[in-house]
Amino acid sequence: MVGRRGATRSVNLERHGAGARVRAKDAVVVEEPLEVRVSWVEPGGGRASEAIAVTMRTPGDDFELVAGFLHGEGLVAAPELLQELTYCRGRDPQSYNVVEARLHPGVPWDPGRFRRNFYASSSCGVCGKASLESVEAQGCRMLPDGFRVEGALLAELPERLALGQGAFRRTGGLHAAGIFDAAGSCEVCREDVGRHNAVDKAFGHRFLGRALPAADRILVVSGRASFEIVQKAVAAGVPAVVAVGAPSSLAVDLAERFNLTLVGFARRGTFNVYTGGARVS
Amino acid sequence: MVGRRGATRSVNLERHGAGARVRAKDAVVVEEPLEVRVSWVEPGGGRASEAIAVTMRTPGDDFELVAGFLHGEGLVAAPELLQELTYCRGRDPQSYNVVEARLHPGVPWDPGRFRRNFYASSSCGVCGKASLESVEAQGCRMLPDGFRVEGALLAELPERLALGQGAFRRTGGLHAAGIFDAAGSCEVCREDVGRHNAVDKAFGHRFLGRALPAADRILVVSGRASFEIVQKAVAAGVPAVVAVGAPSSLAVDLAERFNLTLVGFARRGTFNVYTGGARVS
Repeated sequence: MVGRRGATRSVNLERHGAGARVRAKDAVVVEEPLEVRVSWVEPGGGRASEAIAVTMRTPGDDFELVAGFLHGEGLVAAPELLQELTYCRGRDPQSYNVVEARLHPGVPWDPGRFRRNFYASSSCGVCGKASLESVEAQGCRMLPDGFRVEGALLAELPERLALGQGAFRRTGGLHAAGIFDAAGSCEVCREDVGRHNAVDKAFGHRFLGRALPAADRILVVSGRASFEIVQKAVAAGVPAVVAVGAPSSLAVDLAERFNLTLVGFARRGTFNVYTGGARVS
Repeated sequence: MVGRRGATRSVNLERHGAGARVRAKDAVVVEEPLEVRVSWVEPGGGRASEAIAVTMRTPGDDFELVAGFLHGEGLVAAPELLQELTYCRGRDPQSYNVVEARLHPGVPWDPGRFRRNFYASSSCGVCGKASLESVEAQGCRMLPDGFRVEGALLAELPERLALGQGAFRRTGGLHAAGIFDAAGSCEVCREDVGRHNAVDKAFGHRFLGRALPAADRILVVSGRASFEIVQKAVAAGVPAVVAVGAPSSLAVDLAERFNLTLVGFARRGTFNVYTGGARVS
């Protein structure tokens, strides 16, 4: 399993239907764990590191995934803070399932902070309001007005995203996220077995290209719009999210709070605008 | 936001299509964080507690969710170990977003163990093989042969699951998980904005009813079959998983290792059997 870099793999199966049973081969999406590590230089001069997350992902674009995750969670504000992204080989030289983000000397890191944030209750208890406030505490700001997009174009974006979903066509098993400009050109499309990972990879691509915040771009996702998808868009400074599926209540609340244009059920020429309708012309 | 217990909520939106823009109201699925806490009695006699996870979930069946999660992760082996499940009110008496599982006095608990497991690398590094081995380390065993199910029935199960998806029909925004017997009767169906949560709720229902392992039941999920979905079935002793969508590579590997029957793309009378085909007659 270790070292396989492809996004899909062939498996044996039996197809059943119309009373028949046929042996066949088909492609499935590859799912493998990825450990995200951060390493930093301590005040005394030594380098330390910690694992901050393990995510089940489809191999490929791993550095973008880690960079997008670290930025989206408010842990690394700018690409200049990163000295390098590297695979940790450890004992197995074929292993590509641990990525370490090495911070430049002098960049502060508070070990355990991410886990503490993740598990800590706010004083009011855990609730939707506290979740919204945590996005502000992470340093995210209201998205500016000004960006405009044609309604007719919004309805087309999911079809354009599908053009980039090569692994999905082979397996039916991946989520996709694409970043589009206002003219409807797809700048980057990423696929992953995990919907959040696909978004992290797409935004990580721009982050490493020093192209965040992206105040004139649209995030298009193949699935639904949850709180975390909208949170990642807000962190990336992207003012519009278009989802093929439904939004959740907390996604709508977060979009409203940060002045983000949230579009759902974008299919066959129709779509719903939940928030930020002023940007849709 | 706090205290709203419904699975859906009404929001304002604009429907766009065919050149028109119409104001409307529609239901969206409610998404709220839930903190899972465990409390235990220390050797000295005092009660201690820790938060072990926060999940974004749809309110409802929260005790089943927490029970299913604790069992599925190998943290609480039997319902007899639980003294009670309770909402922690804290400062806000309306808060229903923290559930504490109180272990009976004498039931040991190792604080931080779950987080250590989650973040720890195995000696070979993080990889698919280590993920499979971790399921064995959690105490899961090979699923016995013996259970049989009609192929014609398997193809019908997703439609039968859909009958229980009331909130999905209103919002298009929920995953569902159902537990069926070999005759195709649905014993329990649970919906949630998170696919893992729906499965935890369904298995938690059986766990609290002292009905796990369930060697003669089938888990049906409305989405895809990932590693974690198959892991939860293995932990529940359920020998068959039927998914409407595609399986991942690691789901196939895990199913094979534990002798689980994994069915994917169950739609309109056809389906694929990836592993454990001997149970399908």
